[in-house]
Amino acid sequence: MKQYPRPLAKLINELSKLPGIGYKSAQRLAFHILSLEDNEAKGLADAITEAKSEMKYCSVCGNLTDQDPCVICSDNSRREDIICVVESPRDVAAMERIKEFDGLYHVLNGVISPMDGIGPDDINLKSLIKRLQEKDIKEVIVATNPNIEGEATAMYIARLLKPAGIKVTRIAHGLPVGGDLEYADEVTLLKAVEGRREL
Amino acid sequence: MKQYPRPLAKLINELSKLPGIGYKSAQRLAFHILSLEDNEAKGLADAITEAKSEMKYCSVCGNLTDQDPCVICSDNSRREDIICVVESPRDVAAMERIKEFDGLYHVLNGVISPMDGIGPDDINLKSLIKRLQEKDIKEVIVATNPNIEGEATAMYIARLLKPAGIKVTRIAHGLPVGGDLEYADEVTLLKAVEGRREL
Repeated sequence: MKQYPRPLAKLINELSKLPGIGYKSAQRLAFHILSLEDNEAKGLADAITEAKSEMKYCSVCGNLTDQDPCVICSDNSRREDIICVVESPRDVAAMERIKEFDGLYHVLNGVISPMDGIGPDDINLKSLIKRLQEKDIKEVIVATNPNIEGEATAMYIARLLKPAGIKVTRIAHGLPVGGDLEYADEVTLLKAVEGRREL
Repeated sequence: MKQYPRPLAKLINELSKLPGIGYKSAQRLAFHILSLEDNEAKGLADAITEAKSEMKYCSVCGNLTDQDPCVICSDNSRREDIICVVESPRDVAAMERIKEFDGLYHVLNGVISPMDGIGPDDINLKSLIKRLQEKDIKEVIVATNPNIEGEATAMYIARLLKPAGIKVTRIAHGLPVGGDLEYADEVTLLKAVEGRREL
């Protein structure tokens, strides 16, 4: 036996394509899957197929959803005059976890990155302009990630919307709660000082 | 949105049942799967279903296989008078990687562990006795893992087979190649000294 039987080798190969799963982990997962009850393994396979077929992008905000418009866009209890722009559906989940923001979202599903050849037209930006034209939006909070691409995208959005008289804000940079001044990098510390607030 | 849409939540839930995959990793994997092309996601789901339905245990040695008897048991070029007893199909793969052993295997698919209520009848041991009665086996190499359960299982097998006049050997304990004497635990070092060989 030079290698595993074909169906097992195929499963290991498929699993090892997943992010963060190397060949050894894929082996371990594959053997685990083979040790599952039939209905458990079926549950996993079905969950993949179903999620892939039922999940789509919300036509309004671009978030991943199983209904269109998504639960957030169709929730009447939320403020409709404030939109938080994020990079990915995962960021929506992160924002929702703070249980503080009750406005709407706009998911870019990407970020402007000239290095990777991704320009403003390659992300879900046009529909944001359309939303701003159709509804009376008071504020757009840009919550892209605090890295080069995220900052560039935030700057781009700010320049695009400000002429239209829309208030564009950016989430604060600074030290993470529980962080340590001593170990903070210079840029973060600089941003924290710049963004200081009166007590 | 208190949580993810149902199909996505289900996928995350199924993935987080896998060993070594926590909720955060499951989230990352689920979003990755949603970002795949349709045929790629289908490939993963199909690989799980196929592996689960096509892989079975070899009726001779107990190894995982897609044909019965398995490739090793049906390989005439291998020695039939020496059997290596291992705990799991993964151990067969490990043994095969050293490209030195050309005998047959017997996979216990478990290990005697009174703590977990697993006795000799709960592992694939009876068929080993049957094989030894039917064929002329010269040596049984016990290659269970070098931990408490593995050692207990090895001792049990040795006591079971020795009265029948079969040579039972145990793989050596000692320092791993590339290891460091300074960092070796006492038991390993003791075993390494006990198992010393003349140069």
